[in-house]
Amino acid sequence: MRGVMMYAPGDVRVEDRPMPSILEPTDAIIKVAATCICGSDLWPYRGLEPLAAVPQPMGHEYVGVVETVGGQVTSVRQGDFVVGSFVASDNTCEICRSGYQSRCIHNVMMGSIGTQAEYARIPLADGTLVATPAYPADDLIAPLLAASDVLGTGWYAAVAAQAGPGRTIAVVGDGAVGLCAILAARQLGAERIIAFSRHPERQALARAFGATDIVEERGDEGAAKVRELTNGYGAHGTAEAVGTQLSMSQAIQSTRPGGYVGYVGVSHGVDLRGIDLFFRSVHLHGGPAPVRHFLPTLIKLIGDRSIDPGRVFDLTLPLEDAAEGYRAMDERRAIKVMLTL
Amino acid sequence: MRGVMMYAPGDVRVEDRPMPSILEPTDAIIKVAATCICGSDLWPYRGLEPLAAVPQPMGHEYVGVVETVGGQVTSVRQGDFVVGSFVASDNTCEICRSGYQSRCIHNVMMGSIGTQAEYARIPLADGTLVATPAYPADDLIAPLLAASDVLGTGWYAAVAAQAGPGRTIAVVGDGAVGLCAILAARQLGAERIIAFSRHPERQALARAFGATDIVEERGDEGAAKVRELTNGYGAHGTAEAVGTQLSMSQAIQSTRPGGYVGYVGVSHGVDLRGIDLFFRSVHLHGGPAPVRHFLPTLIKLIGDRSIDPGRVFDLTLPLEDAAEGYRAMDERRAIKVMLTL
Repeated sequence: MRGVMMYAPGDVRVEDRPMPSILEPTDAIIKVAATCICGSDLWPYRGLEPLAAVPQPMGHEYVGVVETVGGQVTSVRQGDFVVGSFVASDNTCEICRSGYQSRCIHNVMMGSIGTQAEYARIPLADGTLVATPAYPADDLIAPLLAASDVLGTGWYAAVAAQAGPGRTIAVVGDGAVGLCAILAARQLGAERIIAFSRHPERQALARAFGATDIVEERGDEGAAKVRELTNGYGAHGTAEAVGTQLSMSQAIQSTRPGGYVGYVGVSHGVDLRGIDLFFRSVHLHGGPAPVRHFLPTLIKLIGDRSIDPGRVFDLTLPLEDAAEGYRAMDERRAIKVMLTL
Repeated sequence: MRGVMMYAPGDVRVEDRPMPSILEPTDAIIKVAATCICGSDLWPYRGLEPLAAVPQPMGHEYVGVVETVGGQVTSVRQGDFVVGSFVASDNTCEICRSGYQSRCIHNVMMGSIGTQAEYARIPLADGTLVATPAYPADDLIAPLLAASDVLGTGWYAAVAAQAGPGRTIAVVGDGAVGLCAILAARQLGAERIIAFSRHPERQALARAFGATDIVEERGDEGAAKVRELTNGYGAHGTAEAVGTQLSMSQAIQSTRPGGYVGYVGVSHGVDLRGIDLFFRSVHLHGGPAPVRHFLPTLIKLIGDRSIDPGRVFDLTLPLEDAAEGYRAMDERRAIKVMLTL
């Protein structure tokens, strides 16, 4: 089968890989219908994070059709169209049952397997995959794929930021996750949503997803602008979807004392001074999103066409052209690239 | 009047200071009935934090009787016995109304005024002071004094750690605040309370306040012990009451993914790596406790004799002997020193 491998920063190739097979009785094999490139795939692409293996199989987002299941799999079967989280989880341990499937005691990061491929092995299939009611209409493939990571991650950020009625929520990051956090904050009932963005097309999508205000300033200046927009108090909550020192600081400073910062950008070189946190007195919560926790809700909202997170995919390419997809995202020519099979 | 001044690390003197007077119409002057020495007073005493002024008036905890009030004060009057927070607050701004009076937009740190003295000016008296129903019995002076900071602070840590029925709560720090966090976790209904302590007398008080388990190990080893006591998961929540790199790391590592760390130890040299926080996925919340928020509840529990946080005072001295009080706490001969007038 064909699959995407990264050999070095900037060096992505589509090549023949062995067909995956059932290794554990809890595994499933899916035929991937669509996959995509994640902002987090750009860290190694840009040489800002070492490759876990050379070459490294790429991708952790996926929707597809179940091809085979292991002997212990009971909740999905051959022919089901499924969406799964970017973290495989048993969905039965205490951590999973408390809503943190991404930190399941048996968690497997799908990025270690690689879903930018024709087929993928999904460990812990019962706890990871959710079947859609039927084979989805063509226009639902993209939003369902978004649910596999960026939508679920943005949703988690908005939940951690305590988005809800009467609340003002700021969103740091205008990539796919940040945009999905805006969509989520809107769905969760936030009254006002302040998006940080300086790109006209992303600002437009931010507004379409529910942003009420756009702030172009960054860092201290951006946070000051949010306080200015909120009678000097700061946002009730802020979703952070970048993962840098600047973005974390901007998120924390944009939030009022006692407010909530939900951070989902994978941290790169971030150091937080305890004394600053102490006197900011915000709630800080985040990490890898428990997408599995939100999937049933998200699949329903997508099926009802209440939300269309598929709009974050502004470039669709065949899997064979993955290298061009990486280039387009790296050069910010595309927000997010869907790869079709 | 007599008051405590710190001239340099280790150099604490009781000397004549000017009588305070009403500076703003929202001020009150109280005749202090009892005050005390805080763990945080030891940071400058040990030379680990610079003095804000030389000499610096000391103290931020107090109970006493209202002597005079400014023209705009309406909620307390001359002769009332009052307890107040270590942070003065207007109790009307949005931050106060959301329960974060310690971060009031008009907050005044009482440590900048100094309550280890015969009299003290209390800014924003309406928003800061709470009168007790009557002049308290002698045995209630100590617990009410504890409510001014250490009890309220421990309470906040336990609330931030989400102590409640069915929960296992770990407590880092066996000083007065940590011990009060144990008492609070118990009152809030925690099922199991794991106290970190290696001092026999403090362990005894921890058990008296509600600790069900004692862990003597520290750091990674201590956190591993907590996980061992909780089926490998970690505590549902941890109250941190020290403020060092070791204690914060111990608290975070003792807590399960998705769990809650409530930190109230004033941070000294603490640096948290974003990537560690990201993958621990705990909720992190703390800072200066909004004692004012909890005071009505705490005063009632103390008046009913449901709790006796006064037990954290294991040494009582006249104000004139404050220097000996500082020495006793510095040398860990006393958990907390009450100064009487």
